[in-house]
Amino acid sequence: MAIDTKLTSQKKDFPAWYNEVVKLADLIDYGPVKGTIIFKPYGYAIWENIQKIFNEKIVNDGVENAYFPVFIPESFLKKEKEHVEGFSPELAVVTHAGGEKLDEPVVVRPTSETIMYDAFSRWISSYRDLPLRINQWCNVVRWELRTKPFLRTTEFLWQEGHSVFETKEEADKEMLKRLNNYRDFYEKVLAIPVFTGKKSEIEKFAGALYSTSCEALLKDGKALQAATSHNLGQNFAKPFNIQYESKEGKREYVWQSSWGISTRSIGSIILTHGDDKGLVLPPAIAPVQVIIIPICKDNKEKEAVLKAIKEITSKFGTDIRIKVDDRENLSPGWKFNEWEIKGVPLRIEVGPKDVKGKSITVVRRDENEKKQIKSNKLDVKNLLKEIQSNLFKEALRFKEENTHKVTDFKAFQKDLEEKKGFYLAPWCEDSKCELEIKEKTKATTRVIPFDIDKPQKGEKCFHCGKEAKAFVYFAKAY
Amino acid sequence: MAIDTKLTSQKKDFPAWYNEVVKLADLIDYGPVKGTIIFKPYGYAIWENIQKIFNEKIVNDGVENAYFPVFIPESFLKKEKEHVEGFSPELAVVTHAGGEKLDEPVVVRPTSETIMYDAFSRWISSYRDLPLRINQWCNVVRWELRTKPFLRTTEFLWQEGHSVFETKEEADKEMLKRLNNYRDFYEKVLAIPVFTGKKSEIEKFAGALYSTSCEALLKDGKALQAATSHNLGQNFAKPFNIQYESKEGKREYVWQSSWGISTRSIGSIILTHGDDKGLVLPPAIAPVQVIIIPICKDNKEKEAVLKAIKEITSKFGTDIRIKVDDRENLSPGWKFNEWEIKGVPLRIEVGPKDVKGKSITVVRRDENEKKQIKSNKLDVKNLLKEIQSNLFKEALRFKEENTHKVTDFKAFQKDLEEKKGFYLAPWCEDSKCELEIKEKTKATTRVIPFDIDKPQKGEKCFHCGKEAKAFVYFAKAY
Repeated sequence: MAIDTKLTSQKKDFPAWYNEVVKLADLIDYGPVKGTIIFKPYGYAIWENIQKIFNEKIVNDGVENAYFPVFIPESFLKKEKEHVEGFSPELAVVTHAGGEKLDEPVVVRPTSETIMYDAFSRWISSYRDLPLRINQWCNVVRWELRTKPFLRTTEFLWQEGHSVFETKEEADKEMLKRLNNYRDFYEKVLAIPVFTGKKSEIEKFAGALYSTSCEALLKDGKALQAATSHNLGQNFAKPFNIQYESKEGKREYVWQSSWGISTRSIGSIILTHGDDKGLVLPPAIAPVQVIIIPICKDNKEKEAVLKAIKEITSKFGTDIRIKVDDRENLSPGWKFNEWEIKGVPLRIEVGPKDVKGKSITVVRRDENEKKQIKSNKLDVKNLLKEIQSNLFKEALRFKEENTHKVTDFKAFQKDLEEKKGFYLAPWCEDSKCELEIKEKTKATTRVIPFDIDKPQKGEKCFHCGKEAKAFVYFAKAY
Repeated sequence: MAIDTKLTSQKKDFPAWYNEVVKLADLIDYGPVKGTIIFKPYGYAIWENIQKIFNEKIVNDGVENAYFPVFIPESFLKKEKEHVEGFSPELAVVTHAGGEKLDEPVVVRPTSETIMYDAFSRWISSYRDLPLRINQWCNVVRWELRTKPFLRTTEFLWQEGHSVFETKEEADKEMLKRLNNYRDFYEKVLAIPVFTGKKSEIEKFAGALYSTSCEALLKDGKALQAATSHNLGQNFAKPFNIQYESKEGKREYVWQSSWGISTRSIGSIILTHGDDKGLVLPPAIAPVQVIIIPICKDNKEKEAVLKAIKEITSKFGTDIRIKVDDRENLSPGWKFNEWEIKGVPLRIEVGPKDVKGKSITVVRRDENEKKQIKSNKLDVKNLLKEIQSNLFKEALRFKEENTHKVTDFKAFQKDLEEKKGFYLAPWCEDSKCELEIKEKTKATTRVIPFDIDKPQKGEKCFHCGKEAKAFVYFAKAY
């Protein structure tokens, strides 16, 4: 586990920096099958923290966890036309099992709408069975051509929530609620400000009536779809025949929404907060929040220092994730380097001098400045809170700095070359226009924000000059 | 969700009772692919409780959680001869992905030794990297011919722990420690007493040096392998080339152990504690520990009753899992029936009379007797503790009643027809003899217990008459 390599700087080669940091911080290893990754303990612990916090949120809100099979009959996928068109190029197919060729191949779930909704059609018979809110935490497989740790992997982990209602209005409300859950989670837990809004027809989920998403702005100026929430309308209810008897005794199709956040979120943390020294983890999800490094020349000194550390940490409270790095064969400098790369929010160094003077050295990962403080003045909880809010503030500043308005397509093309970020433009909402813009600039529509008024009558699409119907954010996607 | 069916009695048809109860208690639904099940929220919540308790145990003990890919190249499986022979009849194979035929088929993991150990060979280089203890909670797939909810399903959920050491002694010690973890977990959490010991050569894990297991005795007298812990020796270390440099600077192969418990454990709960009224869940893992049923004729009564319930439950403490069933369209009798089938440990009925007299009706699921008690005398925590320990006591009594010693094979054959249970017999440890016994009686060796002395010199195998080498438990497996 020797960390003897220096990280490539972000400025020099951002993708190289990313590939190096996920390995050096010991987050992942590569799996033997194309595009798969191994979540090593340090990387998986971040996911466990994300799971714990988000799961508590939705379960307290009445969502029920369940688990559906990983294998879906091919025929299920085919029941919704857009759905199968969207997913079939990415499917992994089991054709042989138990030593025999299967009569019907089964796919490894790329998402679970079809297998869940087949069951829902049996579970739901009356309005009394609604609303139904089912969630699962599981692995899914999408066989992608180009992969990248966390951001796009053959197999990834996620939660997929599936909600069922009597009316479109309820499904709309649920969809917005979950989108807001994700935005809050990104902002408050991952310290990442996001753009939220509606997806274009082209960018929506295969099978949805319409989709919404949270979009993060990464340090290289690119966009990352960070979580999605869809209104599925009755697009699945009809082919899967999910009907309920209404209060009035009529048979009606249900309205549905689905919503998900995945291990991609770990990638967004790295690409939002990381710096040339490595990861910078928000305290809320950092596997180790405080790393404590004893500094001592010999065993006698060590004893005194470890005793002092015990005293200091005993006052932290049980909910702080602390680690004392007392490995013997490594120098303090080596340890500083390792825990910096790993993005631990707070480092405390305790040496024999500190023991005598009752002072300690504290280094915030977001500042990288050594500060001496009296150990009885140390308020770890508050420091972590400050780091958390500082990371968000810094990311928000970056986001605002890199959000631009454009009305002229030529200027947009030129700006895209030089200036990072998201570009808000008046747009016609025409798919053909969208594809042309993509071809010319490699930028795609990210979201149509809810909190910005529609263009005024007479305003033109910045690309094709037709009537503008909405303001939309464009950006290059990761 | 109408529960209008009466359960078949256990005496009449035990397998039918089981198939009915898993559905009526709303634990599962069947998946569309052969042998798969859907863990419905109530069933999945039991698994979440199992996970939480066992995970805390091992993580506090220094085990690190990780996540490895679900896809394993076929060639990996083939590296260990016994391993591939054991698992190849049960593999699900992905031959096509991303719209193309794969150059090398990949299997959906039936267990993760091979993919983990390939990684371990990169992660381990020095004695300083040892011991290594990695665990994952995941889904695995084994394509079995005969399946049964929880007990044997095409896909199941489990934890698999994988530990790596410098010496055989350490691997032995770890194997025993995990076996004891499982025994403790079964006894203290699931209230199920188990037989523990070593597996025979034939019954061991494919690829292990030797295996141990916890075996549960079910109500129908059959045995269920409830958790396993293996010493893998260097059987995988050699083909996967997992070597470390010792303190003395020599290259050595590691010693390994692996250990697992699965969703089969839910089956063992049902089949140990269930009765003719349905499930009986140990409080430690019951999704709902206390069900409270308001009994009232009209809305005015309801208001007073719900207020009284609020008052009563406010004294329970936050760590008790309570549910108030205030559904309007169902009668109290219907609700009693439903929560009995679902095995909720404690039922409290609160009606308007109870409100006035400050007394309530309490029914323990393990007793099914109505008791009136003053609400200020209600000690829910203690009642749950009593139920938990009573369930264990009852299961232990049943286990002792159905554990027999045999020395005569003919008597054993006859007894097996009439008397349920585990039979301890002096045995030669010869695989040929074992297979003959299986053919004649359908009984298999379960475990060679650690806590029973070896046969004295001169004692003969109860079947073949050769020198007896060990006492072993025989039973028919589920």
